[in-house]
Amino acid sequence: MGANWKITLTYDGTDFHGWQVQPGLPTIQGLLAEAIERITGESVLPQGSGRTDAGVHALAQVASCSLAAPIPPENLQRALNRTLPPAIRILSVETVPPDFHARHSAQSKWYEYRIFRGELCPPWIARYACALHWPLDTDALHAAAEVFLGEHDFSSFAATDPDATERTAEEQRGNDNGGREGNTREIYASSWSLHEDMLLYRVHGNGFLHHMVRNLVGTMLDAGRGQICAGDLPAILAARDRSAAGPTAPARGLFLMRVIY
Amino acid sequence: MGANWKITLTYDGTDFHGWQVQPGLPTIQGLLAEAIERITGESVLPQGSGRTDAGVHALAQVASCSLAAPIPPENLQRALNRTLPPAIRILSVETVPPDFHARHSAQSKWYEYRIFRGELCPPWIARYACALHWPLDTDALHAAAEVFLGEHDFSSFAATDPDATERTAEEQRGNDNGGREGNTREIYASSWSLHEDMLLYRVHGNGFLHHMVRNLVGTMLDAGRGQICAGDLPAILAARDRSAAGPTAPARGLFLMRVIY
Repeated sequence: MGANWKITLTYDGTDFHGWQVQPGLPTIQGLLAEAIERITGESVLPQGSGRTDAGVHALAQVASCSLAAPIPPENLQRALNRTLPPAIRILSVETVPPDFHARHSAQSKWYEYRIFRGELCPPWIARYACALHWPLDTDALHAAAEVFLGEHDFSSFAATDPDATERTAEEQRGNDNGGREGNTREIYASSWSLHEDMLLYRVHGNGFLHHMVRNLVGTMLDAGRGQICAGDLPAILAARDRSAAGPTAPARGLFLMRVIY
Repeated sequence: MGANWKITLTYDGTDFHGWQVQPGLPTIQGLLAEAIERITGESVLPQGSGRTDAGVHALAQVASCSLAAPIPPENLQRALNRTLPPAIRILSVETVPPDFHARHSAQSKWYEYRIFRGELCPPWIARYACALHWPLDTDALHAAAEVFLGEHDFSSFAATDPDATERTAEEQRGNDNGGREGNTREIYASSWSLHEDMLLYRVHGNGFLHHMVRNLVGTMLDAGRGQICAGDLPAILAARDRSAAGPTAPARGLFLMRVIY
């Protein structure tokens, strides 16, 4: 009879070419598909809750797929962890109703962006944070983060996607759109906090456009450096033009923290 | 006139072929020499306090070299950190008397070996620890660690070194012998402790033979698993034969913590 599966996994994205399968390149989705095929003999493409870009990490990404093999969840988890490299770990495996789909069923997501503020970034942190030494006005960061709360058209913060032609029509609407039309997303939480040497931006929303979190962070850092002020952000949002916003923050600081269903 | 330099550095050894320079391969010593040459134009081979093997990390390795360029220490440190990859960071740079030599002047060293005991080793820990799931008798580990305290001939725990012909006569006597003859070393501290999911072995001694810490750990783990008992260790030491001791623990769990001068 088979079943529909929900697979929760964590990964260090540094050495992978992102989530999405690409011929001849190591990707999370590709390695997961290969591992499933090696274990069950079934050729499936597990669907992620969204794609993460090259270098982006996940504390808890979710993927779904259907399998014919009647394999106990603990056995599938153990076999996947034995087959996958240590940079990808399966946190849990469970059977779910047939209509569950990791992307379409996602209600909201949490992302975190990590900025190392210490004088010297240790090698074990450099892979998982963006090190910034220049002074940052934290009041400006807080004010900027609040502007994004609520429902907005985030076109100014969406990647212009030069590789869009390689994508499916649905995916072209955004990396992570939960099936929504257009570029309007609702942000439920958006705030900065400092934990010892690490400055963290945490954001919770019902969906995120391609590069959106990294573009939000890059633009807020412009505000933190005084190159723009938080009061400019409503106009940047209203412009609906990528060139109105700031640069894309480096991938290595970004973590997909949680997908809520 | 120039000066003699002491360079303290930290590195993630995962992606390097160890400390020692090797033609065509990325090594810590090789990259440090290249960075110094790019900055000062001087071709020198910085001498480490000892070589670390491929995959072994350093919290604070020490290197020394003489340079003719009259460069301020802060500038040299900053330029090195700009030139080196993020996996190698220069913690400090200072001028030292002409007779200082990172290896010959070393009085003692601290190493730490990290074993992850949790159920699922997160990717950000897997690079920096050895994950072991089997039950371990901690009383046996403690008893085994104590056996090594004091002065012993550690031949049973020294690598047989198939590549010894590639080494200098001095280096053939051991990776890290502080100029000492033979395989006798004194161990000042040797103990296990548990910190949440991480089991740590910390050892302090006046010198360490090639692979010695990893061989001590591999053998103590045999005791922890009940394959030998701590009471067997004096005979293993007395055998002065590598085949008497246990396996070499994986490189990724080992950190050179501190070199004392």
